[in-house]
Amino acid sequence: MPKRCFVGIDLGGTNIKGGVVDEDGKVLCKRSIRTEAENGPDHVIDLMAQLVERVIAEAGLTKSQVEAVGIGSPGSMSHTQGIVIKPPNLPGWQDVPLRDRIKNMTGLPTTLENDANAAAWGEFWAGAGKGTRHMVMLTLGTGVGGGVITNGKLMRGHFDNAAELGHWILQPGGRQCGCGQRGCLEAYASASYTAQRATEAVKAGEASSLADVVKSQGEITSKEVVIAATAGDPLAKRILDETCYYLAIACVNIQHATNPERIVLAGGMIAAGEDALLVPIRTKAAGMTWNAAKDLPQIMFATLGNDAGLIGAAGCAWLGREEGEI
Amino acid sequence: MPKRCFVGIDLGGTNIKGGVVDEDGKVLCKRSIRTEAENGPDHVIDLMAQLVERVIAEAGLTKSQVEAVGIGSPGSMSHTQGIVIKPPNLPGWQDVPLRDRIKNMTGLPTTLENDANAAAWGEFWAGAGKGTRHMVMLTLGTGVGGGVITNGKLMRGHFDNAAELGHWILQPGGRQCGCGQRGCLEAYASASYTAQRATEAVKAGEASSLADVVKSQGEITSKEVVIAATAGDPLAKRILDETCYYLAIACVNIQHATNPERIVLAGGMIAAGEDALLVPIRTKAAGMTWNAAKDLPQIMFATLGNDAGLIGAAGCAWLGREEGEI
Repeated sequence: MPKRCFVGIDLGGTNIKGGVVDEDGKVLCKRSIRTEAENGPDHVIDLMAQLVERVIAEAGLTKSQVEAVGIGSPGSMSHTQGIVIKPPNLPGWQDVPLRDRIKNMTGLPTTLENDANAAAWGEFWAGAGKGTRHMVMLTLGTGVGGGVITNGKLMRGHFDNAAELGHWILQPGGRQCGCGQRGCLEAYASASYTAQRATEAVKAGEASSLADVVKSQGEITSKEVVIAATAGDPLAKRILDETCYYLAIACVNIQHATNPERIVLAGGMIAAGEDALLVPIRTKAAGMTWNAAKDLPQIMFATLGNDAGLIGAAGCAWLGREEGEI
Repeated sequence: MPKRCFVGIDLGGTNIKGGVVDEDGKVLCKRSIRTEAENGPDHVIDLMAQLVERVIAEAGLTKSQVEAVGIGSPGSMSHTQGIVIKPPNLPGWQDVPLRDRIKNMTGLPTTLENDANAAAWGEFWAGAGKGTRHMVMLTLGTGVGGGVITNGKLMRGHFDNAAELGHWILQPGGRQCGCGQRGCLEAYASASYTAQRATEAVKAGEASSLADVVKSQGEITSKEVVIAATAGDPLAKRILDETCYYLAIACVNIQHATNPERIVLAGGMIAAGEDALLVPIRTKAAGMTWNAAKDLPQIMFATLGNDAGLIGAAGCAWLGREEGEI
């Protein structure tokens, strides 16, 4: 019997990634196109519908051989209503009924999911969380995204906003976060805020090999912080250590929240590698957790890389079919 | 058709409460006996089994009219294995297969649940969470207990230790908690730690109307802190304000974790009342939360009072039957 197939679409502000994925999470074909977001929602939705048709054809399939389409969408959205509310990186989008428009244009059952949830579901379905029933993912990129699977189910919450773990307040009265809160995990541990904390320290006059970079570029990237820390720069080491510290606190708090078997770290930041990021987080979490039970989750890196978004979106289509939702 | 009936048993270090509860969460009869924990587990288990028989008889029922027994147990335990691991307030208990022993002695299907989870399920089933699908409860007593219901299901996690929200680290490097961690919610906001913080401040020489109480009793209760705060004592006001502050942070973090419709506060501490506790928590949470979405949960007091434990335990028996687990 041929395997069941799903289309996953990962909508980003710069690129749209699409692909056909089988029921085991294997990518049969994939393609990335420019979002051309400056042309507004109608244009982007046309591009998305064309991409669905194109990847199906490139996989050598007909539409009747594809069960459903899953879309991972950035920013605030409603899974239940299938609406993109107002993503910061898609100008002109406001309450766009993306799910139903793609469904009508392609004729395929379609589901819409938050991109962090979709990526988490992808890792659970076909990546670093495979074989577990309880997994939490933290995506360390521009922001810190979260996704929670508990007892084999994607957790969405009453307002469809569950697992916004980047906005856990972990330092009361701490750094201002873009979300309006103070002391969010994201304001310390995202790639962007890690770089920003380093830039601030250099600008405040702290000695560092990064001073030249700030001088020439005006700011630092998280990659440069990691390189400098690995080379032994004290300021960079301290900044990266602080990032790991807050991520370790987040892991302990995840342990006491949904109590998963595994925590999966994903996003650009994990390019820092095991020694610079994973090992310090594991060590700090083990040193900070309670002694009432031995239930600290495993902490691991994601394995799907750049395909997590589209695999996860396709996985959400699979999930929607399994749950009889689409 | 007569209503389905369940027995709930709430095992505590001092008292065992038992009752017969119908399928709507209504208590048909209840009774409280001394635990006599000093006589060891076999004796306590005998008392529990006798209490099951007794409340059934007092409700005017026969055993065949009762569907199942639910037990809420303190301290570390395993729902999956039905075992009480090592509760701090039950001396001599170690890996006791309580579920199967009660099941064998009564002949009734039996389930075992963490007491905080059971109380949360009770409020969800028949109290302040009724009508929601997503609810979180915080029990403010000697410690801070937690219970999470997401999409109508009790969340247990991979290690059966989910929702230990009192041990969320909310103040990195902060107060030492009994669990071995630093900066736990519990170390600031439980009734005991609220009283302890006040005692410490008085002993450190801060002026307060509570100084006389410390002098005569050696320490203060949380009730005395609330009374002094209400009367305008500055130290007591500051201590209680801090308790509300950390509880408000916990509410925001719950919002971003499981994103429930409602957060329910329970336990001895809520005797402080709406003005002293609930209103400040609501105000602070609203002032601290993000502006990305309007998804701060309602924050309310529990409504089942002292019966929450036994109603919740009976509710867990109902749940076990519904889910085909027992």
